[in-house]
Amino acid sequence: MKISRIDHLGIGVKNIEEVLPYFENVLGLKCYAVEEVADQKVKTAFLKVGEVKLELLEPTSDDSPIAKWLENGGKGVHHVAFAVEDGVADALVEAEGKGIRLIDKTPRPGAEKMSIGFLHPKTTAGILTELCEPQNK
Amino acid sequence: MKISRIDHLGIGVKNIEEVLPYFENVLGLKCYAVEEVADQKVKTAFLKVGEVKLELLEPTSDDSPIAKWLENGGKGVHHVAFAVEDGVADALVEAEGKGIRLIDKTPRPGAEKMSIGFLHPKTTAGILTELCEPQNK
Repeated sequence: MKISRIDHLGIGVKNIEEVLPYFENVLGLKCYAVEEVADQKVKTAFLKVGEVKLELLEPTSDDSPIAKWLENGGKGVHHVAFAVEDGVADALVEAEGKGIRLIDKTPRPGAEKMSIGFLHPKTTAGILTELCEPQNK
Repeated sequence: MKISRIDHLGIGVKNIEEVLPYFENVLGLKCYAVEEVADQKVKTAFLKVGEVKLELLEPTSDDSPIAKWLENGGKGVHHVAFAVEDGVADALVEAEGKGIRLIDKTPRPGAEKMSIGFLHPKTTAGILTELCEPQNK
């Protein structure tokens, strides 16, 4: 697979409004979009720093994966998303062929009209890893 | 403070040699440096993806901060480091003035000849946060 850059860091938070002042007023970043991803039961807020986006993830339901992660003591960076240049579907096949455990066998839609697929942290140095690419690019 | 980009992600691992094949052979990244940071009791390995470095951190002693973090269930991204353009010393003063709890009151030397200072995750959305800049730039 060809990875060009980190697309975004997914950051799990209890409440986006509570943490936004840190990112905006202390770090000087700008929130440019807020979006709900019904599939994942999260509200997201996006900021950009250099070529990387910070995706703040706030659960909208108690059974959201992010709610469970926070409940289990998760904090800070929830996942790291790499932009792949040659297709998420092929990248998932390649990763599995190299012994990586997949969470998603095939790509699915994510925030910002991306096609995404997750790799299991057991086989990725403990990092919940997303591969992503814009759809219809 | 003026933040231009994410400089690196610090990734805590038990053993660099065990996880390098994932980063090199699956993600296709290249390890370009290995360095020991005696102060932090870690061995580090650096890879680059786009403008961001991945800094793998392996404890060299049981009382290394990374050893303790791993022992307490830490995995994946240990810290996020932002490159500041107008000096770490000033950025730390500014952050403290805005209510951020500092781990380092003044800058100290880090890996890759950087001047660094850490912010406490309690006041930074749960993310252990490093501010850094090259020394003698």
